[in-house]
Amino acid sequence: MGNKRMKLKVRHYNVDTSEPTVLMNDSDCVELGVKENDRVRVEGKGVATALVSRTDSLVKPGNILMPSNTMAMSKVKAGDTVSVEYSPAPDSVRSIRKKMDNEILNKDEIHGVVQDILDNKLSKIEISAWLTSLYINGMCIDEIADFTTAMVDTGERVNFDRKPVFDFHSMGGVPGNKITPIVVSIVAAAGLMLPKTSSRAISSACGTSDFVETFCNVSLDSERLKEVAEKTGGALAWGGAMHLAPVDDLVIKIEHPLGINPRAQMLASILSKKLAIGAEYLLIDIPMGKGTKVPTLEIARTYARDFMDLGEKLGMHIECAITYADQPVGAAIGPNLEARECIRILEGAEHPSSVAEKACDLAGIILEMGGIRNGAQRAKDLLDSGEAMKKFREIVRAQDGNYDIKSDDLKPGMYMAEIKSPKSGYIHAINNKNIVTIARTAGSPNDKGAGIILHHKKGQRVEEGSVLFEIYADNETKLKRAIEAAERHNPVDIEGMLIRHVMAPNVMR
Amino acid sequence: MGNKRMKLKVRHYNVDTSEPTVLMNDSDCVELGVKENDRVRVEGKGVATALVSRTDSLVKPGNILMPSNTMAMSKVKAGDTVSVEYSPAPDSVRSIRKKMDNEILNKDEIHGVVQDILDNKLSKIEISAWLTSLYINGMCIDEIADFTTAMVDTGERVNFDRKPVFDFHSMGGVPGNKITPIVVSIVAAAGLMLPKTSSRAISSACGTSDFVETFCNVSLDSERLKEVAEKTGGALAWGGAMHLAPVDDLVIKIEHPLGINPRAQMLASILSKKLAIGAEYLLIDIPMGKGTKVPTLEIARTYARDFMDLGEKLGMHIECAITYADQPVGAAIGPNLEARECIRILEGAEHPSSVAEKACDLAGIILEMGGIRNGAQRAKDLLDSGEAMKKFREIVRAQDGNYDIKSDDLKPGMYMAEIKSPKSGYIHAINNKNIVTIARTAGSPNDKGAGIILHHKKGQRVEEGSVLFEIYADNETKLKRAIEAAERHNPVDIEGMLIRHVMAPNVMR
Repeated sequence: MGNKRMKLKVRHYNVDTSEPTVLMNDSDCVELGVKENDRVRVEGKGVATALVSRTDSLVKPGNILMPSNTMAMSKVKAGDTVSVEYSPAPDSVRSIRKKMDNEILNKDEIHGVVQDILDNKLSKIEISAWLTSLYINGMCIDEIADFTTAMVDTGERVNFDRKPVFDFHSMGGVPGNKITPIVVSIVAAAGLMLPKTSSRAISSACGTSDFVETFCNVSLDSERLKEVAEKTGGALAWGGAMHLAPVDDLVIKIEHPLGINPRAQMLASILSKKLAIGAEYLLIDIPMGKGTKVPTLEIARTYARDFMDLGEKLGMHIECAITYADQPVGAAIGPNLEARECIRILEGAEHPSSVAEKACDLAGIILEMGGIRNGAQRAKDLLDSGEAMKKFREIVRAQDGNYDIKSDDLKPGMYMAEIKSPKSGYIHAINNKNIVTIARTAGSPNDKGAGIILHHKKGQRVEEGSVLFEIYADNETKLKRAIEAAERHNPVDIEGMLIRHVMAPNVMR
Repeated sequence: MGNKRMKLKVRHYNVDTSEPTVLMNDSDCVELGVKENDRVRVEGKGVATALVSRTDSLVKPGNILMPSNTMAMSKVKAGDTVSVEYSPAPDSVRSIRKKMDNEILNKDEIHGVVQDILDNKLSKIEISAWLTSLYINGMCIDEIADFTTAMVDTGERVNFDRKPVFDFHSMGGVPGNKITPIVVSIVAAAGLMLPKTSSRAISSACGTSDFVETFCNVSLDSERLKEVAEKTGGALAWGGAMHLAPVDDLVIKIEHPLGINPRAQMLASILSKKLAIGAEYLLIDIPMGKGTKVPTLEIARTYARDFMDLGEKLGMHIECAITYADQPVGAAIGPNLEARECIRILEGAEHPSSVAEKACDLAGIILEMGGIRNGAQRAKDLLDSGEAMKKFREIVRAQDGNYDIKSDDLKPGMYMAEIKSPKSGYIHAINNKNIVTIARTAGSPNDKGAGIILHHKKGQRVEEGSVLFEIYADNETKLKRAIEAAERHNPVDIEGMLIRHVMAPNVMR
């Protein structure tokens, strides 16, 4: 049975929408048997498949309104005539329905959904239903493994000649987690290869790439990543410059407004990027603490088990480290401030430091995966001896940065405010989320000088009037707003005082 | 803390999108802290809240691309400058998240979601997540009752002076179900008032309004509905002409591409329209059979229980009738053909008939709800005596139709094909879905003459070469396509012959 078709005159509107759409008159839609959000096949010299919006007034019968992307696909210009007919939804919609019904999907079905999202064949409505179903009904480990390989197969791969490939990933959620350049430098200094790709902040204060780019170029394509890593043993690249598991970027746009990150999506997203660069040994850092993705040890252990089970299915050796994340890592939050603190540790100037300890512990696990005994001690030695710093300089130079980089090259923002303690006492808690809010309000991660420096951490004693933390910004307005944010979202809970419940203008000086 | 804002120059694109959107440059979005599918508040002389699409090329920094609906809301024209800032998602998104997490929502939360869908404040992504969550996690009876009243409260109401109000609803799914005018006429002839609102076909072959409009005006507003029903005791209106529970129409646009109709949504949708006209006594017809929404008795009973429980919560007396729906009701499918068969029964010409029996049984239940004893017999008497036909004429006249209407006024389409039996045997099944496909392909419900007349029903003996059914169409092309559809989707299963699995061109003459 052939579908109904009709000839319609093209009109143009000059904006691309994120999904291919056309606007048609109600009567033409009734004639074609097309309902709102159905698809039509629009044939000119080329063919476009587009979602239909219906109107009883904006388009006259016999006409079709097309945005430029749909016009380009069907190779027509305004005034041309196109042939339009109902087009069924792609098969992947059936797979989405199955997941709604809590059925297990096979490899082909999962691949179909991933490919169709990537090819812009699924509408926002359908992707939202997919993610909501994943969030509610979840996936079993076999499905997540298939999901991971589907994400890899639909993207770029990097094939290293030097082997094996070590890799490292932090699940994030804890501010100030500037350990990556230290870990990479230590591991590379030990003679292993760790071509690290990182992300920028989505909702956090500062992603690894956000602060690494303050001292070198992070936009490496896959060729450059290979070159830098095979030469130096390390790399500090921004993953977004490559097309590893590119469907992830599209999915994030739909996850974000729903405020969800389904477990299956998160696991597949992390592992696909590692699989795409051929990682054989992978360490996952699972920061656990209030206000992070992993608030309890039970959840942390579940993630660890998931990662290790998936590693087995995917042929990757995965180990996990559950780390302390009840407060920021180290003292600095924000691009230049984190870069400075990170490099100071490599320079040997800031020992003892929780940042150095965490970095050496994690690097140590990677060294042991690579057959090096007493990994943590070896890592510490490489840091203390300056060999890690030397390796760091090599990597920075390979990524177009200055070999002679010094921590003091990284400058805090021009505008600064000190936030002082309204009373004496012990610091009971530092709220990660509020720290992020203040840092972002100050301009982080886009304003490179913006951020926070904590003067005290959890458990420490502070006296009335002593500085709790400093806020830095690149312009005055943002500093003022960040101060206001600090008033509203007090991040430092001092024992015995319900500062959280008080709008205390006298907190400020 | 104030949100970030910026001044942007307006550009215009001349199409309305279904949800208010704006297109902004990436760098401006980063500056405002706005991600794809976040909302911004756009202030000109007025204020619009719109979803953001981001681009790195289509809009230059400092500009904002706005469709006409967003421009109208913010009261600006091209070239004006607007103030733009991040706008948080409405509170109802939190309620959607709660439903994703399978929590029970309270009355205010449910009302918030319904109101925000109606006010176009929720995006397609969010509405899709809502419906997917409803589909998977469902609602308890208390929630559905709140959902129902929320749908009523956000729409129009009709307040009848004449009381009580009786009503009737068929869950549908069975083709040829032309009983409504007969039921309404009988009930009204018995002195009760049943102001029936019906729908048009969405995916079925022919809705009640699709065939009633072949002989009278169905587009009554609520004033006219009141007038017609209070005068005649009946009405045969199209619900879509009023704004009873208007959110339903918006939700259907999102449900449709997902192919779902969550139970909670379906129940609330049906009952809200009845509650909005003040129905006190309601009969629900639950057609049960293969290829309908209700394939088994167990499911039918669950629906019946739901309806009755809801009736109790909502203060409506609800009874349910589970009816036979394994094959079409009566012989005719399609607007004119159904109208003709329906009126023939009112004329007394087509007894005995399964349509007449079903209509009298259902009307009888309504009469008994109204305190009339031996309802089914009384209904049959009113039909046989011609009183129902007289009442029907009154209703038709009140709705601008011809009082002297005759069944033969309704003409089948000009083009007809007979589909004949390829062998002798007993009819084992008639497939409702295939009947619908053929009737729609022939042009039903928009081409009023299009449709099908079945010559035999389930269980009957047919001889080789005898006519199984006729297809009617208003034009030759559609008739040909419908014949092809009949070949592909054979609706009549004759015992002992796997006609379903055979592409049998010799089925056709």
